[in-house]
Amino acid sequence: MLIIMRVDATQTQIQGVVSRVESHGLRAHLSQGEERCIIGAIGDGRPVVKDQFLRLAGVDRIVPISRPYKLASREFSPANSVFPINGVNIGGNPVVIIAGPCSIESRSQLLETAHAVREAGAHALRGGAYKPRTSPYAFQGMGEAGLEILLEARELTGMPVVTEVMSVEQLHRVAQVADVLQIGARNMQNYSLLHAAGESQRPVLLKRGMMATIEELLMAGEYILSHGNRRVILCERGIRTFETTTRNTTDINAIPVLKNLTHLPIILDPSHSTGNWEYVNAVARAGIAAGADGLIVEVHPRPEEARSDGAQSLKPERFADLVKQIKAIAQAVGRSTDQDDH
Amino acid sequence: MLIIMRVDATQTQIQGVVSRVESHGLRAHLSQGEERCIIGAIGDGRPVVKDQFLRLAGVDRIVPISRPYKLASREFSPANSVFPINGVNIGGNPVVIIAGPCSIESRSQLLETAHAVREAGAHALRGGAYKPRTSPYAFQGMGEAGLEILLEARELTGMPVVTEVMSVEQLHRVAQVADVLQIGARNMQNYSLLHAAGESQRPVLLKRGMMATIEELLMAGEYILSHGNRRVILCERGIRTFETTTRNTTDINAIPVLKNLTHLPIILDPSHSTGNWEYVNAVARAGIAAGADGLIVEVHPRPEEARSDGAQSLKPERFADLVKQIKAIAQAVGRSTDQDDH
Amino acid sequence: MLIIMRVDATQTQIQGVVSRVESHGLRAHLSQGEERCIIGAIGDGRPVVKDQFLRLAGVDRIVPISRPYKLASREFSPANSVFPINGVNIGGNPVVIIAGPCSIESRSQLLETAHAVREAGAHALRGGAYKPRTSPYAFQGMGEAGLEILLEARELTGMPVVTEVMSVEQLHRVAQVADVLQIGARNMQNYSLLHAAGESQRPVLLKRGMMATIEELLMAGEYILSHGNRRVILCERGIRTFETTTRNTTDINAIPVLKNLTHLPIILDPSHSTGNWEYVNAVARAGIAAGADGLIVEVHPRPEEARSDGAQSLKPERFADLVKQIKAIAQAVGRSTDQDDH
Amino acid sequence: MLIIMRVDATQTQIQGVVSRVESHGLRAHLSQGEERCIIGAIGDGRPVVKDQFLRLAGVDRIVPISRPYKLASREFSPANSVFPINGVNIGGNPVVIIAGPCSIESRSQLLETAHAVREAGAHALRGGAYKPRTSPYAFQGMGEAGLEILLEARELTGMPVVTEVMSVEQLHRVAQVADVLQIGARNMQNYSLLHAAGESQRPVLLKRGMMATIEELLMAGEYILSHGNRRVILCERGIRTFETTTRNTTDINAIPVLKNLTHLPIILDPSHSTGNWEYVNAVARAGIAAGADGLIVEVHPRPEEARSDGAQSLKPERFADLVKQIKAIAQAVGRSTDQDDH
Repeated sequence: MLIIMRVDATQTQIQGVVSRVESHGLRAHLSQGEERCIIGAIGDGRPVVKDQFLRLAGVDRIVPISRPYKLASREFSPANSVFPINGVNIGGNPVVIIAGPCSIESRSQLLETAHAVREAGAHALRGGAYKPRTSPYAFQGMGEAGLEILLEARELTGMPVVTEVMSVEQLHRVAQVADVLQIGARNMQNYSLLHAAGESQRPVLLKRGMMATIEELLMAGEYILSHGNRRVILCERGIRTFETTTRNTTDINAIPVLKNLTHLPIILDPSHSTGNWEYVNAVARAGIAAGADGLIVEVHPRPEEARSDGAQSLKPERFADLVKQIKAIAQAVGRSTDQDDH
Repeated sequence: MLIIMRVDATQTQIQGVVSRVESHGLRAHLSQGEERCIIGAIGDGRPVVKDQFLRLAGVDRIVPISRPYKLASREFSPANSVFPINGVNIGGNPVVIIAGPCSIESRSQLLETAHAVREAGAHALRGGAYKPRTSPYAFQGMGEAGLEILLEARELTGMPVVTEVMSVEQLHRVAQVADVLQIGARNMQNYSLLHAAGESQRPVLLKRGMMATIEELLMAGEYILSHGNRRVILCERGIRTFETTTRNTTDINAIPVLKNLTHLPIILDPSHSTGNWEYVNAVARAGIAAGADGLIVEVHPRPEEARSDGAQSLKPERFADLVKQIKAIAQAVGRSTDQDDH
Repeated sequence: MLIIMRVDATQTQIQGVVSRVESHGLRAHLSQGEERCIIGAIGDGRPVVKDQFLRLAGVDRIVPISRPYKLASREFSPANSVFPINGVNIGGNPVVIIAGPCSIESRSQLLETAHAVREAGAHALRGGAYKPRTSPYAFQGMGEAGLEILLEARELTGMPVVTEVMSVEQLHRVAQVADVLQIGARNMQNYSLLHAAGESQRPVLLKRGMMATIEELLMAGEYILSHGNRRVILCERGIRTFETTTRNTTDINAIPVLKNLTHLPIILDPSHSTGNWEYVNAVARAGIAAGADGLIVEVHPRPEEARSDGAQSLKPERFADLVKQIKAIAQAVGRSTDQDDH
Repeated sequence: MLIIMRVDATQTQIQGVVSRVESHGLRAHLSQGEERCIIGAIGDGRPVVKDQFLRLAGVDRIVPISRPYKLASREFSPANSVFPINGVNIGGNPVVIIAGPCSIESRSQLLETAHAVREAGAHALRGGAYKPRTSPYAFQGMGEAGLEILLEARELTGMPVVTEVMSVEQLHRVAQVADVLQIGARNMQNYSLLHAAGESQRPVLLKRGMMATIEELLMAGEYILSHGNRRVILCERGIRTFETTTRNTTDINAIPVLKNLTHLPIILDPSHSTGNWEYVNAVARAGIAAGADGLIVEVHPRPEEARSDGAQSLKPERFADLVKQIKAIAQAVGRSTDQDDH
């Protein structure tokens, strides 16, 4: 941490800051410029509350030097994290494609979709039993009945399943069914849920909040990692901006930035990040071209009957096209879509 | 709901949409323009999934006509909602000032602050026992011990207390202590928590998410109202934008917009919306000038020792100044800060 | 400027940076932390290109210490700048109200509006002869004919006039008519125009770009000031955010922030910052309560016939109410609306 | 245009709106719902000022139906626009790579870069003689001397050149040198410049403003097209959001969205859209994968000496890698980087 003093700071004020630095067991290093003094606080400043320094007399601002996350950082763990989610490796050379409906709506709908996406080349199945909805009057998911259908689809297709958990109370039950617990964008900073997901020791797919910075996403991951749960997958799913022709703005920059900052696998959700099935394939290709480790894509056999997210769901044929396109892009960047290619 | 057909839509496609409209028990009204056909779906379209129409052949886009919230709307309840929170009326002529520390840090810190803000003219006390923090390594609040201190402060000062609840598990206990349950910005779309807060029948102070639209804030309020809990206070606390000189951007427009759209009381949190104590008083004055029903302000006797939000906390003397300024502004807009002036 | 080295930077890399610092005539000050080395570059670093240091081996990032603007800063000129615009002082105790139509549409429309706003208490008249319009098919202003009408209104009412200049070619002629040259939000970073406005030595009302940071606004002001033209008025007119219920988001924080950073007068344009006449008065009051030195407000005798910005224009009666409200708010913050109250 | 009446609108108000619609030579079509009346205005509503309807009694809001741009739209011109810029075709199957320094700094710097990028596979050369800079104290470009160097580079390498024009006064001279006139992001809504560029009949590379919606970009293009100048290239160069780890946020969604809405060629500038050379290649690949028609990339032989944008400039070797990567991605999406592959 650097403490930038005001231009008019007095010697007494500088001394006050130095004493405060030392009271935290840190060393103070003074650098007197032409205009002002800068004080470096040397040592592990992570537990120190930075705002406290900001309020000392003569202080202009604080510049943090160390990253606020540790376990999630590339420095802590230079090699890419690669781990299996029920037989499918994520984070290695092969890119992973997770597909399925937004919501589980019925046994036949889920099974039909599951078979279709497996056939097309998906590696894992998604489907929500508990749904966060903007309106209290909208379909809130099938709940427990949906989980049971998901379990059946998992058994019938052999694919690992990813499903959302919305609260601590649900977590125990959802973890019995899910190979990967999904934490949705609106819950990215629901810290009670992050703690519980960390404790569960299940793989977690953590979606970036639509308002969250990349650093905040990493800090949310750090909550889970801090419980010793190392299997965290980060998911870019679009951020909110002023642009309104698409539901969200895909932050494609986040893919290489995250690859630089963290060892965790990064996937892209082109369905939410565009909100429009017509743009999903183009943006999915972009994600893999930019270096993402996988995709999570919404597919519905009859989007015009979907109870949620119909606008952004691909029909199975279109999804099959997407898988072919992704295969070509993956090869162009030296990767594969085949789990056997290690 | 209006369904705007594509310029090249065929008669068969138009018929398909009409049939679909009618299958929902709605009437279809066709309007043939020079360029394209527009189909109005007449009747209560709220339960209809709009995305489904979007995916029908020939459809260009959907324009919703009715507001998605009902109980929260001015149309539903034209007069301002006014209700007491343990003796203090909110939503009427007098503006309400809620003040106190970000976190409860110790018995002496809270009691000192409580007495100081009451002395200065605050109507209610705030203080967090459970704290949502970006970092898992930061102080997470005193928890149960904090609640007990809050209870004591409530008894000693006679002020109603506002405190945050972060999860459904905590809610029962927090509701035993709090006169008002606060739901924080990061939990504005934690639907499990909104449902539980609705069921609790306690007054709720609902903070706008930092990237939530005004409509989404109203929809979150609707979740609580839909359980018959009518005592919801909405709080503007700044939104996230590209501007970085302040922690958030106070959306001052939201005050008159919300006053127009809803009957619920609206308050402003100038501490979070600026993130800097130097700007709090100016923005607090602006909030009351714009028509807010109250303020929630962070105050700490020694901000340089605060375990959270020290940068934006007022010292008691500054807060006392603020109360005087607010009194003057309230008068200028025909309001009072005195609860006896009805 | 501080140069933060990477954790793995070598001694040779550190030496390389030190040599580069010294080659610019600056002194290098090394601060070796536990994790990494930080190099302070001491001296006037303003002309140094910071990106150049960023590309040296071993460098992680650059932290600028000095502000990039000088003439606009409070440090350079601690007292508020107060100057007359044809008899009306701006920047002092009295708040200044500028009002008039968005576009000059006809002689009768402008004169009717001018008399009405003067009657109601406005201090200066606004009206556009050259209009920046999103669409090439929209009314682009009356041009020269509009300037002549403006000149007549100025003579008849005695009010100083503010009008927009859109390009360098127009500037000479507009400066013959206008007491204050307005540079619009879309031209805030039109540097050719800023240079020309600086050279003109006329007072300039500089509007913040809808996506410009406060620092960028100050840098744009610096362009004008750097030509020795000290009469610059800054105008907050709303920024673009994700919120869509209003045309822009009024950045009310910007008022106290700018008051802190600069000595220049700051005014608010509540018409553009809300885009809706129903919200103009509330937000105008907020601006004065927050410390703005004035307002610029759109008024039209018949908004339903306005050729631009009808949605946000006040009718004269509503504007008269606004002036009364502003008088009350100004008094509440120790200011006046009367130019004779110095 | 649809006019949505208020729930409480009277028959007289509805009649007033109908009369107004008809006074514009349009037909009014009434649709009476259960809650409210909707009035369709049928005919060419483009010249009608929508705000005027908004201010009529009883009106709630206006929903535009037709797109505000015409010449730029896919409906107007269904096939992709393909045109040559001095021998290089843009908009067809082969993707076009434009590369070169941000600023022309010297004869040797430009010639060295020009030869290097041509060698690596670039199709056109970029380089700025007039530079828009945030600070008046920063290098503003070599001006006329830079143009002469650019002319020499053009002759020596045979590559077409792209260079920025910042104002109407410069345009005539810049158009003598440039094969493509670049209009920068800050000038996207400098309408005087757009008109002049349209009149010049030279190809124009129009960069999206950092604050501009996709629709506003198309409207800016429409300004140029409205002068009969059909050779407009649109360029996504990143938008401003809350995310700060990158200089801008690449709106990758804009690529397929623009491909859907317009026939004009779309290119991506991964240098500005990331602001960091380390992320340029990943994002450039993403752009081509998403369907862009080309790239404009900053390259500098010694970025650590660049007078502008050093942080985001590629070294020639890295650029050569990029060209290879782009070739592979182009093939994966059925395109080429070879101008002879039509």
